[in-house]
Amino acid sequence: MCRSIFLAFDWKNSVVFSHHSDTGMSPKITGELLRQLRQAMKNCKYFSEPIQAYIVPSGDAHQSEYIAPCDCRREFICGFNGSAGTAIVTEQHAALWTDGRYFLQASQQMDNNWTLMKMGLKETPSQEDWLISILPENSKVGVDPWIIAADQWKNMSKALTSAGHSLVAVQDNLIDVVWMDRPERPSTQLRTLGLEYTGMSWQDKITALRTKMTERKVTWFVATALDEIAWLFNLRGADIEYNPVFFAYAIVGMNTIRLFVDLKRLSDPALRDHLQLDSPSKPELSIHTYPYESVYTELQAICAAHSPKDKVWICDKASCALTQVIPKAHRTPIPYTPLCLAKAVKNESEIQGMKMAHIKDAVALCELFAWLEKEIPKGTVTEMSAADKAEELRSQQKEFVGLSFPTISSVGPNGAIIHYRPLPETNRTLSMNEVYLIDSGAQYVDGTTDVTRTVHFGTPSAFEKECFTYVLKGHIAVSAAIFPNGTKGHLLDSFARAALWESGLDYLHGTGHGVGCFLNVHEGPCGISYKTFADEPLEAGMIVSDEPGYYEDGSFGIRIENVVLVVPAQPKYNYRNRGSLTFEPLTLVPIQVKMMNTEMLTQKEREWVNEYHRKCREVIGAELERQGRKEALEWLMRETQPVV
Amino acid sequence: MCRSIFLAFDWKNSVVFSHHSDTGMSPKITGELLRQLRQAMKNCKYFSEPIQAYIVPSGDAHQSEYIAPCDCRREFICGFNGSAGTAIVTEQHAALWTDGRYFLQASQQMDNNWTLMKMGLKETPSQEDWLISILPENSKVGVDPWIIAADQWKNMSKALTSAGHSLVAVQDNLIDVVWMDRPERPSTQLRTLGLEYTGMSWQDKITALRTKMTERKVTWFVATALDEIAWLFNLRGADIEYNPVFFAYAIVGMNTIRLFVDLKRLSDPALRDHLQLDSPSKPELSIHTYPYESVYTELQAICAAHSPKDKVWICDKASCALTQVIPKAHRTPIPYTPLCLAKAVKNESEIQGMKMAHIKDAVALCELFAWLEKEIPKGTVTEMSAADKAEELRSQQKEFVGLSFPTISSVGPNGAIIHYRPLPETNRTLSMNEVYLIDSGAQYVDGTTDVTRTVHFGTPSAFEKECFTYVLKGHIAVSAAIFPNGTKGHLLDSFARAALWESGLDYLHGTGHGVGCFLNVHEGPCGISYKTFADEPLEAGMIVSDEPGYYEDGSFGIRIENVVLVVPAQPKYNYRNRGSLTFEPLTLVPIQVKMMNTEMLTQKEREWVNEYHRKCREVIGAELERQGRKEALEWLMRETQPVV
Repeated sequence: MCRSIFLAFDWKNSVVFSHHSDTGMSPKITGELLRQLRQAMKNCKYFSEPIQAYIVPSGDAHQSEYIAPCDCRREFICGFNGSAGTAIVTEQHAALWTDGRYFLQASQQMDNNWTLMKMGLKETPSQEDWLISILPENSKVGVDPWIIAADQWKNMSKALTSAGHSLVAVQDNLIDVVWMDRPERPSTQLRTLGLEYTGMSWQDKITALRTKMTERKVTWFVATALDEIAWLFNLRGADIEYNPVFFAYAIVGMNTIRLFVDLKRLSDPALRDHLQLDSPSKPELSIHTYPYESVYTELQAICAAHSPKDKVWICDKASCALTQVIPKAHRTPIPYTPLCLAKAVKNESEIQGMKMAHIKDAVALCELFAWLEKEIPKGTVTEMSAADKAEELRSQQKEFVGLSFPTISSVGPNGAIIHYRPLPETNRTLSMNEVYLIDSGAQYVDGTTDVTRTVHFGTPSAFEKECFTYVLKGHIAVSAAIFPNGTKGHLLDSFARAALWESGLDYLHGTGHGVGCFLNVHEGPCGISYKTFADEPLEAGMIVSDEPGYYEDGSFGIRIENVVLVVPAQPKYNYRNRGSLTFEPLTLVPIQVKMMNTEMLTQKEREWVNEYHRKCREVIGAELERQGRKEALEWLMRETQPVV
Repeated sequence: MCRSIFLAFDWKNSVVFSHHSDTGMSPKITGELLRQLRQAMKNCKYFSEPIQAYIVPSGDAHQSEYIAPCDCRREFICGFNGSAGTAIVTEQHAALWTDGRYFLQASQQMDNNWTLMKMGLKETPSQEDWLISILPENSKVGVDPWIIAADQWKNMSKALTSAGHSLVAVQDNLIDVVWMDRPERPSTQLRTLGLEYTGMSWQDKITALRTKMTERKVTWFVATALDEIAWLFNLRGADIEYNPVFFAYAIVGMNTIRLFVDLKRLSDPALRDHLQLDSPSKPELSIHTYPYESVYTELQAICAAHSPKDKVWICDKASCALTQVIPKAHRTPIPYTPLCLAKAVKNESEIQGMKMAHIKDAVALCELFAWLEKEIPKGTVTEMSAADKAEELRSQQKEFVGLSFPTISSVGPNGAIIHYRPLPETNRTLSMNEVYLIDSGAQYVDGTTDVTRTVHFGTPSAFEKECFTYVLKGHIAVSAAIFPNGTKGHLLDSFARAALWESGLDYLHGTGHGVGCFLNVHEGPCGISYKTFADEPLEAGMIVSDEPGYYEDGSFGIRIENVVLVVPAQPKYNYRNRGSLTFEPLTLVPIQVKMMNTEMLTQKEREWVNEYHRKCREVIGAELERQGRKEALEWLMRETQPVV
């Protein structure tokens, strides 16, 4: 497994929702590898002239947040396995750029062939400036055009060109050339999803996409994001851990559908039937399948046969290689594809599925907390064993597929490390004296979950309760907010912080991210963050997380996270007939009253807590009863007593 | 007077803080003017080849919000005198683009030679698309490069070039060619401001600017914004109504200072002394004066003598003409200049001056309201006469210079027109039965004011009180907010709306704008708006307005506006030593309790109102007493009774 971590969609390079990776504590020995790579940089088999530098970005050819082991090339060459980082190797130097979350980890994982470039520090040069300062005149800098995004290519190329160098696309990846035991690209079994889960056939999704294309006078759409392709065809895979996606591309025209995927995966008769590969109902809904690798030549052929008026939609974060196949005049780059937008607004079946998934997930978590209460006094439960128990309990639930991200299970000071993940060398024992934070989630066939609870099994300090209550106030302020249709999520972010700010506190991550339905736990194009990235307005049916926090370095961490559904609200008035929206919590796990300073809550906030707990009782109580999980039910009833 | 209106800094083209202009209700007859203009478009005196279209933007060569009569070229050619609009004349067509605020006004002011292009409607083509659709092949489109901003030129030029046309800079303005009685460019007397007002000599401001230039390795700075130049040299003029600025440019190098201004203005010995024109203290602080018009050739000469490493700072909103003098490699365009940033953070003397100005302004307003209470029952007060009275009362205060914008004085349904300004044909009489909204402000030598109060002289309806109370809650939420150092103003905008949103209401303008100190009432680079323009973080010493509202079309308008100062806050904790900020109201005019539904207020909100009114009593009461204005003092005491 490549232990890449994730950052919320579009929040790359910021301290937001990162889940930490394993840190192998001894550095990787890279001398011989670098020698081989430098050899390859001079080897004319791969290009007409030698290159003087080679850039190794993170990531795969699909803008994936998590990547498959075969794509962990930057980790392979330098040893550093954090989620964010770019390695650059020249004839003399090797340097890695990463951000503040990873300074320590990177310095531990890399040997002294590597220079750590600490991004965000004033004295650290940018990759462009560094290259320009050390390269001989007229140098060529190589990069795999499949791994670098079109917009990144553009910036790097511009900077290098203006200094007399050039950026060149090296078609064969030079890391792969020296990576002897590189894993195969995964090709897991594909799973078809019926209408009961998806609510919309892939045929109808194609038709809706074509309607959007017609509206915008676009004749071709190139899909490169794996979750969009999985969503479009109502298929799921297991090629990337935590993300039920599969490696593929798709090109949709007004009369044709091309799917690029390892063809061996298409032998299953049920799958062939689902995609109507052998007997398409209509010619324009007939899927033509091609090998994964042939997307480049097919797109080339399509573009060659172009009429001058044909416009091609491609995400501006797609790979440089695929983007540049499309002649510039025909290219219509978009920050979010129509599939990304359509996928974000869940239909009735998806909402129903997400609700079911969250009920099952809450059952498992109620059981976990009841079990922890019993076991912790024995002193045998650790961060890692608690995480394992959570997974075990989730796996007992119907249609469980796997986790949706690595569980953050953290006690005391570990809780203050936002992207913490327990490792043998950091593993703490849960006790009656420290705050416990668990941020976890799962993939079920009917939906994806992501929930954080912060609890104390003994007596929390007044300060811990005070901070918890500020965070709770923020959580409620977002969850109960009523706002006009068309409001962008970033306008709600300050609601989550107001109570903390009033006391001089804050947290340095966003407040919420979009959540997929049996898809990626982080998805665009909506979110709630102080960073005003180009988020799309919230609309009914969208699903986001609401997760303010507070982190006291060296002491404890607090985060309260629900997944919430955007629903219409019916306030007293309706200004300009715009309509209003609010949130409905899908997560139904009690929020620990013991951690609250209830005197700090307003009457409205107390009512929100009581109504939330009433709903937990009603919905999760019934399910616990049905599943005969008595201890958890008792725990739930006790934890959901009204506050006064 | 050119009755141009203003839009808050950087919020052009949005419905934000606009102050309406007079609407001449009969259209301007433009047939002959257009004939002459089209003649000029073919006349080789102005260019080597005829042009097929001519663009007439709003605005002057200094990115001014308000413009002088001589710069109202778009109004001259088409008759439409709203603040925002672009006219384009071709051989066959004449069209004007403006936004929704002005559809009615523009249609009334233009004759049928003109096509009104309603911006924001789906069917309305952009200027580029329209030009491309009607121009013959290989057309030349002309524009005055002094009036078009560098970034607008770039976009227009790109679009035209890609369609086979070209955008050409026409040095002589073709409107001026046909404008026989065009007013002279104003050249009013300059006023020097001493240290007691400015708190910092122009010499020290130059030195501080040079420090910033050194930090960023910039060798030249070109100042084009009139308020920045006025601020830098501690001078004021009266060239543009409401804005105490004067037409000038400045170019600051590391050892030289060039000031471009009508040299006739520099004869006053006190002024020459202020600028040390005859006996500079140090060579690098010697100001070299040049005629206003010679900025182009001087900048050319500077650039010609450039070393290849010299960098020139110029605002990216500066004119295309001046921007393009600087070779691209030397140009460092910036969204906000260092002067804009420095000017926004007021020093102790400026803060003291702003406080004094607001005390005088409050005295005038208390008198106004006391007078209105007495006069309204007689049925003789109109929107216009009330505005005149407000101006008269302000003019009695020390160091009054003029209004800071045209007074918005509106009764009943007129109050719902956000950019209303009373005109003879719309002028309503103030009564005991309707809500009255007055948004007004003045320029004093020590500071600039901008205040809105909404009052009822009879018995407001329950709905009017309800809406007023939501707006008040929003006003308080912003004014009392505590937030971390480094927070951008747009993150506070939703606080102003939360109470309205909860009831399904909203207002369609921003919440606050920066305010100059005896300078423009709207200034960058900070503000409070849902529009996430590139605002700079708030810091102590900045001054902004806090002015949420609610507008019930056809019925009434509510707005509560204070000018507030950003000050350090001392909450309980200090997360990561970032420090916290909050606001201190500079405006000290009672907020009408009669309009409040006090039951809807929280205890905290009631305390805020009482503390605010206590301060009004204390500060304004003392000043009213000192000035012997008894009736106003009685009114103040009555209006500031604590709410319970």
